[in-house]
Amino acid sequence: MQDLLNIKRSLISVSDKKNIVKLASALTKADIEVISTGNTYNKLIESKVKAKKIEEITNFPEILNGRVKTLHPNIFAGILADLKNKDHISQIRKLNISKIQLLVVNLYPFEKTIKETNLIDKCIENIDVGGPSLIRAAAKNYLSTAVVVDIKDYEKVLKDIKKYNGITLELRKYLAIKAFKRTMEYDAEIFRWYEKNLSSKNNRSFFLSGSKIDSLRYGENPHQKAEIYSNDLNSTDNFYEQLNGKQLSYNNLNDLNTALSLLAEFKEPASVIIKHAIPCGVAESRNIDSSWRKSFLADSLSAFGGVVALNRKVEKKLAMELSKIFLEVIVAKDFSKEAIEIFQKKHNLRVIKVKSLNRFKTSKPKQVISIANTFLVQDSDNFSISKKNIKVVSNKKPTKNQIDDLIFANKVVKHVRSNAIVIAKNKTTIGIGSGNTSRVDSVNFAMEKSKRVKLIRGGKGKVLNGSVMASDAFFPFTDSIKLASKAGIKSIIQPGGSIKDKYIIDEVNKSNIAMIFTNKRCFSH
Amino acid sequence: MQDLLNIKRSLISVSDKKNIVKLASALTKADIEVISTGNTYNKLIESKVKAKKIEEITNFPEILNGRVKTLHPNIFAGILADLKNKDHISQIRKLNISKIQLLVVNLYPFEKTIKETNLIDKCIENIDVGGPSLIRAAAKNYLSTAVVVDIKDYEKVLKDIKKYNGITLELRKYLAIKAFKRTMEYDAEIFRWYEKNLSSKNNRSFFLSGSKIDSLRYGENPHQKAEIYSNDLNSTDNFYEQLNGKQLSYNNLNDLNTALSLLAEFKEPASVIIKHAIPCGVAESRNIDSSWRKSFLADSLSAFGGVVALNRKVEKKLAMELSKIFLEVIVAKDFSKEAIEIFQKKHNLRVIKVKSLNRFKTSKPKQVISIANTFLVQDSDNFSISKKNIKVVSNKKPTKNQIDDLIFANKVVKHVRSNAIVIAKNKTTIGIGSGNTSRVDSVNFAMEKSKRVKLIRGGKGKVLNGSVMASDAFFPFTDSIKLASKAGIKSIIQPGGSIKDKYIIDEVNKSNIAMIFTNKRCFSH
Repeated sequence: MQDLLNIKRSLISVSDKKNIVKLASALTKADIEVISTGNTYNKLIESKVKAKKIEEITNFPEILNGRVKTLHPNIFAGILADLKNKDHISQIRKLNISKIQLLVVNLYPFEKTIKETNLIDKCIENIDVGGPSLIRAAAKNYLSTAVVVDIKDYEKVLKDIKKYNGITLELRKYLAIKAFKRTMEYDAEIFRWYEKNLSSKNNRSFFLSGSKIDSLRYGENPHQKAEIYSNDLNSTDNFYEQLNGKQLSYNNLNDLNTALSLLAEFKEPASVIIKHAIPCGVAESRNIDSSWRKSFLADSLSAFGGVVALNRKVEKKLAMELSKIFLEVIVAKDFSKEAIEIFQKKHNLRVIKVKSLNRFKTSKPKQVISIANTFLVQDSDNFSISKKNIKVVSNKKPTKNQIDDLIFANKVVKHVRSNAIVIAKNKTTIGIGSGNTSRVDSVNFAMEKSKRVKLIRGGKGKVLNGSVMASDAFFPFTDSIKLASKAGIKSIIQPGGSIKDKYIIDEVNKSNIAMIFTNKRCFSH
Repeated sequence: MQDLLNIKRSLISVSDKKNIVKLASALTKADIEVISTGNTYNKLIESKVKAKKIEEITNFPEILNGRVKTLHPNIFAGILADLKNKDHISQIRKLNISKIQLLVVNLYPFEKTIKETNLIDKCIENIDVGGPSLIRAAAKNYLSTAVVVDIKDYEKVLKDIKKYNGITLELRKYLAIKAFKRTMEYDAEIFRWYEKNLSSKNNRSFFLSGSKIDSLRYGENPHQKAEIYSNDLNSTDNFYEQLNGKQLSYNNLNDLNTALSLLAEFKEPASVIIKHAIPCGVAESRNIDSSWRKSFLADSLSAFGGVVALNRKVEKKLAMELSKIFLEVIVAKDFSKEAIEIFQKKHNLRVIKVKSLNRFKTSKPKQVISIANTFLVQDSDNFSISKKNIKVVSNKKPTKNQIDDLIFANKVVKHVRSNAIVIAKNKTTIGIGSGNTSRVDSVNFAMEKSKRVKLIRGGKGKVLNGSVMASDAFFPFTDSIKLASKAGIKSIIQPGGSIKDKYIIDEVNKSNIAMIFTNKRCFSH
């Protein structure tokens, strides 16, 4: 086989000794010499694996509590010698240095240590110096040396040796890429720790890194390139599993983000319909079928071509209903076999199972906005509304049903673009005003949209009567309250916090409207 | 002085030899021994600086074309020995190893080489092995060794040595942090190159890193933390300079992003007013004063508390006009002294000079959206509309003035949240529909907002007559066209690309409306 590297000699120096006896024993059985350091050597000898002490190669003692043991030219020349370079070969021969073709190293557990202790000295002692030097040397010289930094790769190496009596170029390249990933990650961790612990300044760095899961067809628009990444350099795990349809587009994924973040706020069966990353119909109900129906009839015009998200398993009956409508994506907690079969008749319909809906509540990634040569980073909005964190500020107290509707509306308004207004009734949105540059516009347009609502009792023109309203930020003027009162809205939930709060409360008292303050603004731009 | 490190011996090994003679010469004058490698040694000797060859310390030849020269225990023990550890001191004394207190290293130019050549061998030969090993050893042992990796720091080191006859702990910490930043960045670059050049898979990694410029008071909402970073780990350069007022908030910065990205589309004097990251009034005119006035009167209700961006210098007269209105931020290309004095009377008013407006056009950062354990990355929307990339698809041809208005409206609609509609006249926005879940809603609401416009000729109820309309994506139905026609809109610009395009074109032809296709959707969510 071409480009096969014959392995005659290996150097093993590992901090994590898992599976090392098994590996070394297999190497010796394949007639490969094993050279080893300090504790690794002791472990091998105890386990009756034949190994050579590194001091026999270096003729130099291990000193400074192990800080210096492998940093010797006899070792580095053995790793760095290019087997295709005649000068290299004659130089090492002259110095009586033997070529090392396989290096197995894992590093002092710096990452683990800093999690376990605040002792500066102990953390620093766990910065490996020899290990990364060996790894980098071997990864540079991957044509003549194979380097293993991950215990998971022991099997791959043994498989190659067994099968080909050597290590293939393909595997060496794979291993070399992993090696530089490892030294980069290790030093990134040390750099961050140094910055935090050795600097008096508060100027820390920010890092985001990820492994590509997939290229997307394009970004927000066809002339923009886009990809999806896992935020872990060592995994390409996605948050979903696709069961049917075309690949998700960038805009689908952006919609899914809003859909699932909103859906994760609900415990009862709930349905969320998204268009352009904005909720257009949302309902929470006793069962998932009625939730879907209510959310759809809230604004069936907007639902056309939308993304639907459901927090329960989709069974046959619901699948049949859903498949009657033009939707881009259906995402749910799960699907019955029959449901999937129904959807499979529509080749383009994207059917997505979310692996963990809870992850949209618990894993709160940092949000990044790029601005020219700078970028903003902020925490996600982690606040969850509940009956415990609301305060009635009006004379009129909301009824129990109104409180349920108010909390429902507040959960939705958090995921609507600012300025955001949500009008709701029976835990169903009946008017959503989003992305307006003036709050009263959002109130007006939410009311305008309520004309489309079907299903809700009250009849045409009366749908707003008895409804509740949520606002993502305080009301700067009384105009919105006056509009609400005129339309028959009976209670309002908002953060409060305006210097005009007193006037707003006076106005709701005048109109016999109940008002709740959450004390938590929920802008989302 | 406490924690001062006395320097008796230094090791210098640099690839970039700028200022090295100056540094080494100053060190020898301060009675500090200089040990050096290969070419660095030759350069020093040529320049008559006293230096010792590294081989005198290692008793080992430089081999493998320089791959192995510093990787020797006599060197590493000299760097790694802890001066406060008696065992360390006695061990190195016994082995006749001298302590090295100062290390000066810069690395083989891997980053530069990969930009200049595609020759794999040449790139790999420029991966420094010895350098990072030395740097990491010294940075680990910063208590007993100072490490310099940046030519810019030579002066700092010499200053300390001159002033204190040693190097302070503070400087050693600063240098150690920089050292690990350097090795991390170096390996990140190598990893990326390996991934690109050695892997057959298309699975590349993504990296974003930055240095903190500032902590912000809070994020989008008071319960979210936020910071601003420079996207260069070696700089904390911001895109603006603040001339007056409170610190910019996260939301101000987000608004500035939209404001300046939109402003950068215009060449003529232009004014942009932003609320909640959405344009509410935009005008381009012969001079900046009239642009401002037009943009303000387009929607003075929304402008309340807004962010104003201007692409010309603000002089006294305009400053007086602007200071009459409640604004959060005024950002401009520049301000006259008198203008600044006027603004300074309002302590809270944030006055911002943008360092390079052009940067918002040319530097197109990647956009990142976090979704649970994944994130999306996409290119910015780089497309710029001009008279060259439009196509008339209607029977009616737009007039010259209409084309100017259409291009103006298209520039604005690109920066309005989808579904986005912009109605304009005389290069002034007169109705902006943003963030709606149905396109016809955006048309309706844009028209509704046009009722507020002042200044534009035509009088109440007639402002839409003769105006133009831009849409960020195609029209799925003819409803929007019918509304436009009824309102007196005379020409429309849109990407096209719907399967219903034919019906849309039939409809504009029926209404004697001119229509242009851009063939470039400009969604922005």
